[in-house]
Amino acid sequence: MRRSSWSGKAWMLVAALLVGGTVMRAQSQSQPEPNLMPMPASVKTGDGLLKIEPTFHVTFSGYREARLDRAGQRFMIQLGQRTGMVFAHTASAAGPALAITTDRDGKAIQEVGEDESYSLEVKPDGATLHAANPLGVLRGLQTFLQLVSVSPDGFVAQAVRIEDQPRFPWRGLMIDVARHFVPMDVLKRNLDGMEAVKMNVFHWHLSENQGFRAESRKFPKLHELGSDSQYYTQEEIRDLIAYARDRGIRVVPEFDMPGHNTAWFVGYPEIASGSGPYAIERKWGVFDPAMDPANEKTYKFLNELIGEMSKLFSDQFFHIGGDEVNGKEWERNPKIQEFMKSHKIKSNEALQAYFSGRVQDLVTKHGKTAVGWDEILVPGVPKTIVIQSWRGADALTAAAKQGYRGILSNGYYLDLGWTAARHYGYDPMGGAAADLNDQQKKLILGGESCMWSEYVNAENIDSRIWPRNAAIAERFWSPQSTTDVQSMYRRMESESHRLEWLGLTHVTYQRKMLQRAAGMASPQEFLALTVLTRSLEPVKDYGREELAPTEPTSQTPLHRVVDAVLLESETSRRFSVAVDRYLASSCQDAAGAARLREQLQEWADNNSRLEALAQRSFLVKEAVPASAALSQSAAIGLAALDRIAQGAPASDDVKKQQSDLLKAAEIQAHKSQLTIPALGAMQKLVDASSNGGACSARK
Amino acid sequence: MRRSSWSGKAWMLVAALLVGGTVMRAQSQSQPEPNLMPMPASVKTGDGLLKIEPTFHVTFSGYREARLDRAGQRFMIQLGQRTGMVFAHTASAAGPALAITTDRDGKAIQEVGEDESYSLEVKPDGATLHAANPLGVLRGLQTFLQLVSVSPDGFVAQAVRIEDQPRFPWRGLMIDVARHFVPMDVLKRNLDGMEAVKMNVFHWHLSENQGFRAESRKFPKLHELGSDSQYYTQEEIRDLIAYARDRGIRVVPEFDMPGHNTAWFVGYPEIASGSGPYAIERKWGVFDPAMDPANEKTYKFLNELIGEMSKLFSDQFFHIGGDEVNGKEWERNPKIQEFMKSHKIKSNEALQAYFSGRVQDLVTKHGKTAVGWDEILVPGVPKTIVIQSWRGADALTAAAKQGYRGILSNGYYLDLGWTAARHYGYDPMGGAAADLNDQQKKLILGGESCMWSEYVNAENIDSRIWPRNAAIAERFWSPQSTTDVQSMYRRMESESHRLEWLGLTHVTYQRKMLQRAAGMASPQEFLALTVLTRSLEPVKDYGREELAPTEPTSQTPLHRVVDAVLLESETSRRFSVAVDRYLASSCQDAAGAARLREQLQEWADNNSRLEALAQRSFLVKEAVPASAALSQSAAIGLAALDRIAQGAPASDDVKKQQSDLLKAAEIQAHKSQLTIPALGAMQKLVDASSNGGACSARK
Repeated sequence: MRRSSWSGKAWMLVAALLVGGTVMRAQSQSQPEPNLMPMPASVKTGDGLLKIEPTFHVTFSGYREARLDRAGQRFMIQLGQRTGMVFAHTASAAGPALAITTDRDGKAIQEVGEDESYSLEVKPDGATLHAANPLGVLRGLQTFLQLVSVSPDGFVAQAVRIEDQPRFPWRGLMIDVARHFVPMDVLKRNLDGMEAVKMNVFHWHLSENQGFRAESRKFPKLHELGSDSQYYTQEEIRDLIAYARDRGIRVVPEFDMPGHNTAWFVGYPEIASGSGPYAIERKWGVFDPAMDPANEKTYKFLNELIGEMSKLFSDQFFHIGGDEVNGKEWERNPKIQEFMKSHKIKSNEALQAYFSGRVQDLVTKHGKTAVGWDEILVPGVPKTIVIQSWRGADALTAAAKQGYRGILSNGYYLDLGWTAARHYGYDPMGGAAADLNDQQKKLILGGESCMWSEYVNAENIDSRIWPRNAAIAERFWSPQSTTDVQSMYRRMESESHRLEWLGLTHVTYQRKMLQRAAGMASPQEFLALTVLTRSLEPVKDYGREELAPTEPTSQTPLHRVVDAVLLESETSRRFSVAVDRYLASSCQDAAGAARLREQLQEWADNNSRLEALAQRSFLVKEAVPASAALSQSAAIGLAALDRIAQGAPASDDVKKQQSDLLKAAEIQAHKSQLTIPALGAMQKLVDASSNGGACSARK
Repeated sequence: MRRSSWSGKAWMLVAALLVGGTVMRAQSQSQPEPNLMPMPASVKTGDGLLKIEPTFHVTFSGYREARLDRAGQRFMIQLGQRTGMVFAHTASAAGPALAITTDRDGKAIQEVGEDESYSLEVKPDGATLHAANPLGVLRGLQTFLQLVSVSPDGFVAQAVRIEDQPRFPWRGLMIDVARHFVPMDVLKRNLDGMEAVKMNVFHWHLSENQGFRAESRKFPKLHELGSDSQYYTQEEIRDLIAYARDRGIRVVPEFDMPGHNTAWFVGYPEIASGSGPYAIERKWGVFDPAMDPANEKTYKFLNELIGEMSKLFSDQFFHIGGDEVNGKEWERNPKIQEFMKSHKIKSNEALQAYFSGRVQDLVTKHGKTAVGWDEILVPGVPKTIVIQSWRGADALTAAAKQGYRGILSNGYYLDLGWTAARHYGYDPMGGAAADLNDQQKKLILGGESCMWSEYVNAENIDSRIWPRNAAIAERFWSPQSTTDVQSMYRRMESESHRLEWLGLTHVTYQRKMLQRAAGMASPQEFLALTVLTRSLEPVKDYGREELAPTEPTSQTPLHRVVDAVLLESETSRRFSVAVDRYLASSCQDAAGAARLREQLQEWADNNSRLEALAQRSFLVKEAVPASAALSQSAAIGLAALDRIAQGAPASDDVKKQQSDLLKAAEIQAHKSQLTIPALGAMQKLVDASSNGGACSARK
C-alpha cells in the first residue's frame, strides 16, 4: 500500500485523535485516514470535500449494460440511506456527479481472475470512477460509499485519488446452510455485505448429514425427505445466483460426498454403504454413513444429480466436498470389502480416492471444474482440481508444489470464535507458502472464510460472520503489507456500522436476544445483562461441544446467553489495550489507572445486579457462574491496582493465590460456556503488582 | 372490565412491584397484571403456569379453512421468535397444546360487525381457544402470545381465563401513503402491528395533491405521471388485501375528491377546474386545484375509475374523501359559475354537495357504500353513508342524531405528536355522544387513528404510529371503563417490545438516524445525542410548519434530529411522574429528590458534550439551541431542589425570573423545532421552592 501524502508520524497522530472520538480538523490540514476496508492498493488523499447534495447523481459512459444501471440505482439507494437524502428522481446535468466510465463488458459467467481494478478520483467539483469492466465499477462504488461522511456543512466525500486492484482472485465466504437452514433473505443481506467488502465468491455448502437444501427435480426425495421442508427451490437458487452476479459474486455450490450424506440417504438408501433405514441426523460431529463407492448405482445417481446441478449452478467450479469420511460403513459392508479386494484397493483412503476420481470425471463430463477439501488431493488426481485447505498453509503449499491450485480456509473458520486480529494474522501466502516460486504462488488463488452452522440460525448468524469477515476480506484484497492491527480494528468498526445500514443485523440482533432472555424488559432494566454480554465471549474452538451439559442437537434452541454474546468483545479488547498502555507507562499514568479502575469497578459490581435478573429467567440464571467469575476477577484486578498505587507489592504467595483465582474464574465461566477475554490483562496487572513485577516499585 | 380474582389493593401493590422492575412472586401468590393490550373484556387469572416446550403445538377442531392454518403457522413462528425455540415440525399428540375450536366460517368479504369474540383458557396442562368464527381465533391467538413470558423454569404462559369481545366494530388505522410513499413491506409490518392490537380496518389514503399511488389500468397517466414512479401495482394491492384478510383486517381505499387532487390533474387536466397544466405538488397545505363538478366528463371519468377500483378493492366501503376544498378554482372558472347559476347552486359548499351526491351515486352504482370526511354530510345525503369525523365528537353526535353512521378520528391524529395519554383520553362515546340514545349509539361504529405523512418516510413512520397506536387500539376494543393511564403506559411498553419482535422498527430505527446525524460513530460516542433525543420531543400539532426556517416540501430530507426524536419522551414522562410524587410527599422523600437530581444533573451536563458532537455535524448543530435550553432549564430545576433542601424559598422576584427563563427555554428549543416536555415539571419545582410554595417550609 502506498500512501504518498502521509508521513508516518502525522498518521499516528490522526489515529490517536480518531480513537479519542475527537473532532476532525479544518480541511486545509492533513486528512484523517479514510475509513476504507479493505484498504485499497494506493490511496492519495487530496484537499477539499465533495458535497453530496440532492442533485448528486451518477453518469455512465463507455460500455453499458443493465447490471451497471442496477448498480447505479443501488448505489443511489445506499447513498440515500447513508445521508437520509431524497435524490432527484431523474439524473440532471446540474450539480456534481460521479462519472463512471467502463471500458468493456465482463464475462457472461463471471470467471476467476477477471479484472476487478478501478481508479477513483474525488474532487470538490465531482468524482470519476474508471474501470476496465463492470466488476471494477462495483468495487469502486463501494469505496466511494465508504468515503461519505457527515461534516459541519453537510454530507461530504473526502477528496482522494485511489488506484486499486485485488491481491487474490478468489475471495470467498462459505456458509453452511445445511446444519441450520439459512433463509433466502439472510443469504441476500450477507451477499450485500460481501459486496461491501469486495468479496467475490459465495461458497454455498448445501448438503450435510443434517439436511439437503437444494430442490432436485431428478431426485425429489433428496429435499422432500432430507430437509424438514427447509430447502431452496430451483427458482430461488437462480434468483440468488442472479443477485450475486449483480454484486460481482460467483456462486460455488458444494455437495459434500462421500461422507456427510445422511440426509441424502433418507430418500435414497440405495446409494449408501449401510443397510439403512436412515433418518436426518440431529447431532453434530463425524458420522459413519457414507456413499457406496463399490456400487455402479451410486455413479449413475451422481451422474444425473451432478448433471442437473451443473445446469442450475452456472459457475465453472463445482465443489464435491470429500472431507471427514471415517470408513466404518465401508468396513462393515462385505460387498465393499470384496470390491476393494478385487480392485486391489488397500485402504479406506484409497477407496475414497477411487470414488473421488469417479466423481471428478462426472464433474468434468458435465463441463465443470472440481473443488474439494484437502482429502481429495491424492496421487494421480488431475491438475485441474482446486484444493480448499482446512488443514493449513503447509498442505496448500505442498499442493502448489505439485501444480495444484488452492484456496486457504484454515485460519478463517468464523465459527471458532477467534478474534479479528487472529484471523487477520493468517495469510494465504504465509508460512511455507512464502518460499514458493512465482509460478507456484500464482496457484494460490486466495481464501475463504467459513461459517459452519452448528450454533447459528437466522437470528444470530450475521453476528457470527460480521464484522470479523471484513478483516478477512481485507486480508484477501489488500496488499500483503496491510497488517496494522490497530488500524484494522478502527476501520472495521466503521465498516461494521455501514454493514448494518446495508441490512445486516450483526449489531442490532443482540437487543432482541437479551430482551428475550431477560424477559421482554426495556434495556435499562436489563443493563446488568448487557454489561455481562459485552464483556464476555463464547468459549472458543470446539468448546461448546466439550463443555455442553447435555449433547447439543439441531433442535437445541439457540436462545441462550452464549448464543447472544458477540464472538469478540470490543469492551474487553479495549480494556486489554488500555492495560498494556498503562503498564508501558510503568504504571505512572494516573488517568489511565482511573479508567481501568472504572471498568473493573463496573465488572465487580455487576454480578449482584445480574443475580436479580437471574431470579426471573432461566436463561439469565445459566450465565450466573460466568457473571460471578467476571466480578471476582475484576475484584482481583482492582486489588492489584491498589497495591500498585500503594507501592505495596504482593508476595509470591499472594501472587500465586491471585493467579490461581483468575484461572479458577475462567473454569467457572466455562460452566456458562463463556470465557472472560480480559483475564489475560488482569493477570498482567497481578504480575506487575507483585514482588519483582514491572510496577512493584511505583510510588 | 371484570377482574374477579383481584382486590384493588393487591393490584396496586403488584403494579408498584412491576414498575420497580423487581422480581415476580411465587406462583401460589396472586399473579401480576398480565401484559395484555388491548385489555380484554374479562380476565380471571388462575393458578399455575403452562410451560412452553418444543412439543407445544396448536390443534384445530370444528370449522377449518386455509386462513386458520396459516394463522396457526404464523402463531408458531411468533411463538418461536418470542422464545427462541425450535418447535417440532409436525404436530405431535405428546405435550401440551393450544386447542382451537371454531364454530363456523366468517364472511367471504370481511364485514363490519362480524363476531370477533373469543374465549381463552390457559391451564398448566394446556390451553383452549374457542371462537364463533376465524376472526375471534385471530384475536385470541394474539392474546395468548401476550401471555407468554420467561420464568425461572423456562418459557411459560400464565394460567388465565379470558372472555373477550370488542367494544366497537370499526377499529382502524389510516395511513397516508400519498404525501410520502410508504413501501409494501412497511405497510405489511404495520398490518402485523394492527393484528397484534386487534385493529380491523386499514384505511389506505391513496391519493393526494402530492401523489396518486394506485395503478389504474383505465387511466394509466394517474400513476404514471402522478406518482414519481412510486405507486402500488394492482397485483401488490391484491396481495396486501389478502395479507390483511389473513389478519382479520378490512382494507378501505380512499380516493379523496374533489380537492386534494393535483397529482390526478398532471395526467388528466380535463377533469380539473383550472386551466392547467398541473405538476405534482411538492409543498404541504390546502391548495386551489379541484375537480370540475360542472363538467359531465368528470363524472364519466369517475364512473370508470370508481368502477375499476371497486373491483380491485373488495371491501364494502369506499372512501371518497371530500375534505378541505377552498373553492378558488371554482370561483375563477366562468363555466362553473354559469353552471352554479343555471342550477341554482348558491355556494361552494352547495356545489360540493352536488358533486358529492353525484359521486355517491356512482359509488352506490358500483355496489359500494360511501365513506367521507365531515364535509360530505349535507342535508339530503342518503343515510347509508358513513361519516369519518376529523372535526370531533360534536359533529359525530350531530350526525348520529340524524341517523348517520360515524367513526371518530378527531383526537387520534398520530402526526400531531400528542402523548399516548392524550389520545387515550378521547372516546368515540365521549362528549356529546354520551347523551345519545341506545339506537343512536349503535351508529357510532368506532374510530380510526390517522397517520398523515408530511414528516414520515419508510424509516421513521413506525415510530410515529407505534406504540401510541396500541393505546388507541385499546380505546376502541376494551370496555369504556378501561381508563387507568398508569396501567396503560406499563402495558404499552411491554406491547411495544412485542411489536418490535413482529418486525416493526419504532424503537430500533432511531439508532441508525442518530448514527447518521452524529457521523457513523458507535453509540458510546454519541451518547450526548442519545440523552438529548430521549428527553425532547418534536414541536406539537402543526408547529413543524409554523417554526420551519424554510418552507418544507416533499423533497426535504427527513434526516434531522427532529425527525429522529420520539414523539413521546418516556424519560421526560417518568421525570414528570417522579416530580409529582416528590411534591406529593411534601418534598420529604429524600430518595425521590436524589433521583430527580440525578436526572437533572445529566441534562444540565449534557449540552457541553453535545456541542463537541455538533462541531462535526450540521445535523447535530441544528439541535444545539434545544440542547442548551434543556441544560439551562435543568440547572433551574437543580437550583429549585437546592432551595427546598436548604429551606431557603425563592422570593417572588426570583420565582418570576426563573419562570421566565423556563418559558424562554421553550422558545429557544423551538429553534430546533423541538420541545422540552419536562418543563412543566421543572416549573412545579420552581413553584414549590418559592415563597408560599408547597415545599417552601421544608427542613
